[in-house]
Amino acid sequence: MKRRFPDDRSNLEARFAAQRLAFGPMMFQATRVLRRCGALAFLYKRELDGASVEELAEAVDISLYAARILLEAGLAAELVQLEGDRYVITRVGYFVLRDPMTEVNMNFVHDVCYRSMFHFEEALAEGKPAGLREHGDWATVYEGLTQLPTHVRDSWLAFDHYYSDGVFEGVLPKVFASEPARVLDVGGNTGKFALACCGHDPKVEITIVDLPRQLELAKANLREAGVASRVEFVAANMLDPEVALPGGHDVIWMSQFLDCFSEAEIVHILECAARVMDADTRLYILETYWDRQDYEAARYAVINTSLYFTAIANGNSKMYHSERMQACLEQAGLVLDADLGTMGYHTLFRCKKAQG
Amino acid sequence: MKRRFPDDRSNLEARFAAQRLAFGPMMFQATRVLRRCGALAFLYKRELDGASVEELAEAVDISLYAARILLEAGLAAELVQLEGDRYVITRVGYFVLRDPMTEVNMNFVHDVCYRSMFHFEEALAEGKPAGLREHGDWATVYEGLTQLPTHVRDSWLAFDHYYSDGVFEGVLPKVFASEPARVLDVGGNTGKFALACCGHDPKVEITIVDLPRQLELAKANLREAGVASRVEFVAANMLDPEVALPGGHDVIWMSQFLDCFSEAEIVHILECAARVMDADTRLYILETYWDRQDYEAARYAVINTSLYFTAIANGNSKMYHSERMQACLEQAGLVLDADLGTMGYHTLFRCKKAQG
Repeated sequence: MKRRFPDDRSNLEARFAAQRLAFGPMMFQATRVLRRCGALAFLYKRELDGASVEELAEAVDISLYAARILLEAGLAAELVQLEGDRYVITRVGYFVLRDPMTEVNMNFVHDVCYRSMFHFEEALAEGKPAGLREHGDWATVYEGLTQLPTHVRDSWLAFDHYYSDGVFEGVLPKVFASEPARVLDVGGNTGKFALACCGHDPKVEITIVDLPRQLELAKANLREAGVASRVEFVAANMLDPEVALPGGHDVIWMSQFLDCFSEAEIVHILECAARVMDADTRLYILETYWDRQDYEAARYAVINTSLYFTAIANGNSKMYHSERMQACLEQAGLVLDADLGTMGYHTLFRCKKAQG
Repeated sequence: MKRRFPDDRSNLEARFAAQRLAFGPMMFQATRVLRRCGALAFLYKRELDGASVEELAEAVDISLYAARILLEAGLAAELVQLEGDRYVITRVGYFVLRDPMTEVNMNFVHDVCYRSMFHFEEALAEGKPAGLREHGDWATVYEGLTQLPTHVRDSWLAFDHYYSDGVFEGVLPKVFASEPARVLDVGGNTGKFALACCGHDPKVEITIVDLPRQLELAKANLREAGVASRVEFVAANMLDPEVALPGGHDVIWMSQFLDCFSEAEIVHILECAARVMDADTRLYILETYWDRQDYEAARYAVINTSLYFTAIANGNSKMYHSERMQACLEQAGLVLDADLGTMGYHTLFRCKKAQG
């Protein structure tokens, strides 16, 4: 009897898919260089006429050998197609050339992740970011961020911004629908959300809680924006078992914060929040869940980001399934009050204390 | 007017294909660990019933966190499929688990290529194997082979053998059809072909030409096999401009030798051969050409091997298109006498001196 599988691929297709995984690092580097050396840009200009090996080598000033290596790799990666002896850029090649998401991902993978991912197996086994040592001697990437070489930090920030920029715009009307007077921003980081709140509502007062190092950055940014008088800064390490959050806020806000922690740590942080919440307090959680993405490429990027958390960031966090977050809420004595839907890559949950 | 591309992918499909390239190194490492930790083997046993995260974590003794990270990565890589809350292995997962070609390729990529490929861009720009420094301080990988750590050398040899083993069986009857009395084996390496010849024909005499270091290995192997008396050993560096091959052979043999050289070097080596050939001498060239592969996965593997030559082996050679080899033959005053077809990954060319 033939063995059955849930996918309807033929053996030939499955074997080819397996080779694509097996040679992933090779094709990645070739794709990256095809883009960087100007080959894809040149082929894009040539439209359906394409270019011969010789024309490409001359146009982008590389050796004939390099041109052959790159174009043949491009053929395997399906970035180019061979028409007679002319290489023509495909739609995939076009996306590698022009799509900002692809560029941001490739730079992040090369500059931040590539070398570190060699230690992925060790990281998973130990629950520690074993790949981080390729960058420096830190316990988590957050400690080392300011010390990373400029191009590495730039790639890290570009990745972070690409998936987050603009999200507050859609979120603020929902958070401010209840006209909160005081907002507690847990893990306020550089003060971006606090600043957006101050701009959105002229009276709201914000309390930012974060590690001392982050608070300095937030303070500087909010002072520069002239709104520091409306913001209070509270230094706290949310992993400290004895940590307590300040009380008296209408809204508690956690944006892209909980994905930096393990499930056990998330429950601990949510319990801290629950302790300062009453029946009217609302906790808003903004996260990128891998099960809540609009299209396949987005889900793919979010899942891949988990591997970065394992090997480089902290060794024990990830991009979660939305149901895991709900399980954490429940354990912390909270419930989902309203699922406010997905904006871009992010989903906004409004939570409240469980009754009883 | 809409921009046209030669492929018929939608924008969504093309964008997803671009992300697969962009995250190639991440998916590679996750795939590798899914296989090594026993997760794929366990899921294979569970057939269409699959397993929950908890069952898998317990069965292969990894943390729940590790199980989630791996299974979600497997979902993105299409190694598993989610049926309700159970992960079921796909046909692709099965090939990653059981296909020897996939295993050999993954080990080769991880152990030999992964770290070195970080320097691919530099290697291409300089025409030097810039990635080799991750393994040691050698000019080419061949100098360092015996000094590589055991697991790296094993992965290298397994890759080499996978694509070559068994090929002589199909080739020998064709080479010996003309009953040659004396065969010149240029780049005889470990003496494998010479040994096969001695087994195939009880009278034939072989001359092996190679670098002194390789000859020692070949000598030892042929002595052990008890056929050393029928083999002559000639030390020569084929890149030496003054090098001359010994004359008086009916057949000259070059197996998987020319792909270790640039086109200019190939022409030089072929010219050396032409100088000792008369109208009756036949030169047999056995090579893996990327345009002569039976199926897509094979072409893919052969093209990817070129990137290894660039970044690690020597910086200037590759797996060639069969027409490039014919162009080299022509430049050296030789012509293709007969295309003896493809056996597995290899194509056998019989060549002779051009008339005139």
